[in-house]
Amino acid sequence: MTDPVLVEVLRCGHVESAHRGAVAVVDADGRTVLEIGDVGQPVFPRSAVKAIQALPLVESGAADACGFGDRELALACASHGGEPAHVELAAAMLASAGLDEADLECGVHWPSHFESSLALARSRGEPGGLHNNCSGKHAGFLCTCRHLGVDHRGYVAADHRSQQLVREAMQAVTGAGHGEENGATDGCSIPTYAVPLKSLALGFARMATGQGLAPARARAAKRLLAACMAEPFFVAGTGRADTRLMQAAPGKIFVKVGAEGVFCAALPELGCGIALKCLDGGERGAAAMVAAVLARLLGGHDADLAGRLMAMAHPPVLSRKGATVGLVRPAAALTG
Amino acid sequence: MTDPVLVEVLRCGHVESAHRGAVAVVDADGRTVLEIGDVGQPVFPRSAVKAIQALPLVESGAADACGFGDRELALACASHGGEPAHVELAAAMLASAGLDEADLECGVHWPSHFESSLALARSRGEPGGLHNNCSGKHAGFLCTCRHLGVDHRGYVAADHRSQQLVREAMQAVTGAGHGEENGATDGCSIPTYAVPLKSLALGFARMATGQGLAPARARAAKRLLAACMAEPFFVAGTGRADTRLMQAAPGKIFVKVGAEGVFCAALPELGCGIALKCLDGGERGAAAMVAAVLARLLGGHDADLAGRLMAMAHPPVLSRKGATVGLVRPAAALTG
Repeated sequence: MTDPVLVEVLRCGHVESAHRGAVAVVDADGRTVLEIGDVGQPVFPRSAVKAIQALPLVESGAADACGFGDRELALACASHGGEPAHVELAAAMLASAGLDEADLECGVHWPSHFESSLALARSRGEPGGLHNNCSGKHAGFLCTCRHLGVDHRGYVAADHRSQQLVREAMQAVTGAGHGEENGATDGCSIPTYAVPLKSLALGFARMATGQGLAPARARAAKRLLAACMAEPFFVAGTGRADTRLMQAAPGKIFVKVGAEGVFCAALPELGCGIALKCLDGGERGAAAMVAAVLARLLGGHDADLAGRLMAMAHPPVLSRKGATVGLVRPAAALTG
Repeated sequence: MTDPVLVEVLRCGHVESAHRGAVAVVDADGRTVLEIGDVGQPVFPRSAVKAIQALPLVESGAADACGFGDRELALACASHGGEPAHVELAAAMLASAGLDEADLECGVHWPSHFESSLALARSRGEPGGLHNNCSGKHAGFLCTCRHLGVDHRGYVAADHRSQQLVREAMQAVTGAGHGEENGATDGCSIPTYAVPLKSLALGFARMATGQGLAPARARAAKRLLAACMAEPFFVAGTGRADTRLMQAAPGKIFVKVGAEGVFCAALPELGCGIALKCLDGGERGAAAMVAAVLARLLGGHDADLAGRLMAMAHPPVLSRKGATVGLVRPAAALTG
C-alpha cells in the first residue's frame, strides 16, 4: 500500500515537493474516526509520546514531592527549544531532587531555537545537557528515580527501573507490545518502540478521556495533558507548531511533535486521539498535516478556530527578502 | 506513476522514514544511461544549475576582466556556507567591479554553516548579503552587468538583461523551454524554471563534454566545471555533500546541490550528466541518492572510489551522545 500525498509544496503555483503520510484518529473505544493511509504500519513515535512517558513521574508521587506545577509537568512532556526559560526550569527541576546537569544522560546539543543558540554564543556560553530538547523529560526520569530510592545512574538503559516504568505505561496506554523485536534507541539514548499509528492514536484518546485506564493513571494522564495545554510554551517554544496549535484553542487541543515527522494529539472534548507520520520524516509536512487534521475535526464545532488552524496548515514559502514565492498546501486526501 | 523509494532511514534495523525520488543519467547525445522514476517530470533545479547560470560571466569576458581564477568561478557556481573565506572572496569579487555588499539583491540570512553563525554571533556580528549562500552567484551577475555596461540595479528581475542572458544559456544548454508558464521565483529572488530532469541531465552532459554547444560556450562550460572541481570548498563548504563528493575524486566528479532535494552532476570522463530529485525536498535523501548513483556509475572503473562513495551514501544516524543508532541506506532501486 502506497500512502497518499497529504501535503504539497508549491512555488508560484507549481508543485515543487510533496509529502506522503498516514493519519489515524480513533476514540477511546478504539473506533475509527478518520483513517488515511496505512494506520497499521509500525512507527517510532519518538518524542510525540513524552506525555505518556511522564506518567510514572506523576503516578509515583515524585511530581508532588518535588512540588511540580503545570510548567514543570509541561517541560517533562516537552521537546523544548533550549530557550533560557526552558533551561532554567529544567535546572530547577533537577535541583528539587538534589541533582544537576551532570546527572543528565541525554547528551548535549546547541539549542534547537536558533536565536537562543546565537544568544548563547554571544554570551560566550557553550551548550550543556540542560539545552538538550529532552532535558525536561530526563529531569522527570531522574526525579522519579530519586523519589523511589532507585540509583539513577544508567537510567536511560532499557533494563533500568526508570525505563521499565515507562515501558509499562506505554504498553498499558497504547495496548501495543513493546519488546526487543520492535525496540530501538532514541536520539536522547532511551528506548523507543515502533508501534502502529492506530495504537498511538488510541493511547492519546485514553490519555484525554481516562477511559480504559486505572483511576490513578487516568488522573495522572489528564493532569499531564492539562499542564501541557495550560503552558504550551514549555512543551516546545517560540514559533513552534505544537505551541502555536495549543495556543490557538486553549484547553481544547493537546499536540506534541516527534522526530522524523510524527505528531500525536488529543481533543479532550471530542474524546479522540490522533497520530500521524510524514513518511519522509520531514517536520514541514507533518506540521501541515496535523494542523489540517485538527481543522477538519474541529471545523464543525468552531468555524473561526478551523480557519486559524487551516491558515497554519498553509504556511507561505518565502524568499530571502521575505517575499511570498510559494505555499505549503494540504492535499485533498487530507482536507476531505 | 509513483516514483520509487530510493533511500531508507533505519533506526536499529527498522525502517523509520523513506525518501522517494527520480534519477536521470544521459550522455551528451541524450541517450539514456540510467533512468529511475519519472524523469520527464518538471523539476525546479534551483541552485543545482548555478554553473550553467554562470556561463554569461565567462562568455562575456567579465570573468577575465575581473581577473577571476578558479576560486572566484567556483564561488560564482556555489551555494556556500557563509564561512569567512566564502564571505571574503565574495566581497573581493564585488570590489573587482567597483561594487559592494549593498549592491547584492539576494537577501540576507545567517550563514548556512552553523559554526560560522556561532562565530559571527560571538564577534557581535550580524549577517549581510555576503553571507547569503548565493552571494558568489550574485557577484557574478553584477560583474557581468558592469562589464557589459548595463545598469545593474534590479538585476534579479526576469526582464533584466542579466536574467535574459542566464535564461538564454539555460535554454540552449538544457534544450528545455524557459517561459512564464514554467517560471517561478527562487529563494534569492531570481527566476527559476521547472524543466524535466532528463533535460537537466543532458545539460550537464553537454557542460562536461562541450558537445552540442557553440565553441566559446563549450570552453566556458569546461572552465567552470574545472574550477568547481579544483576548488570544491568554494562550491559549498565544510562537511557539505558536494564538496566531499568532489574531493573524493578530484577532476572526475562535478556535483552541485539545489534546494528542495535536487542534485545535478557530471562525470567528464564518462561523458554523462546526472539530475535527480528527492520528491519530498529533503537534502538527506538527495545526498544519499547522488552518492549512490555516482558509486554505481563509477564502480566499474574504480572500486576503491566506489567504496568511498558508497560509504557517503550510508551515513550513520547518531544519538546526541554520538552513538550510532541507525543508518541511511540507498534502496535496491538505486543501487541496481
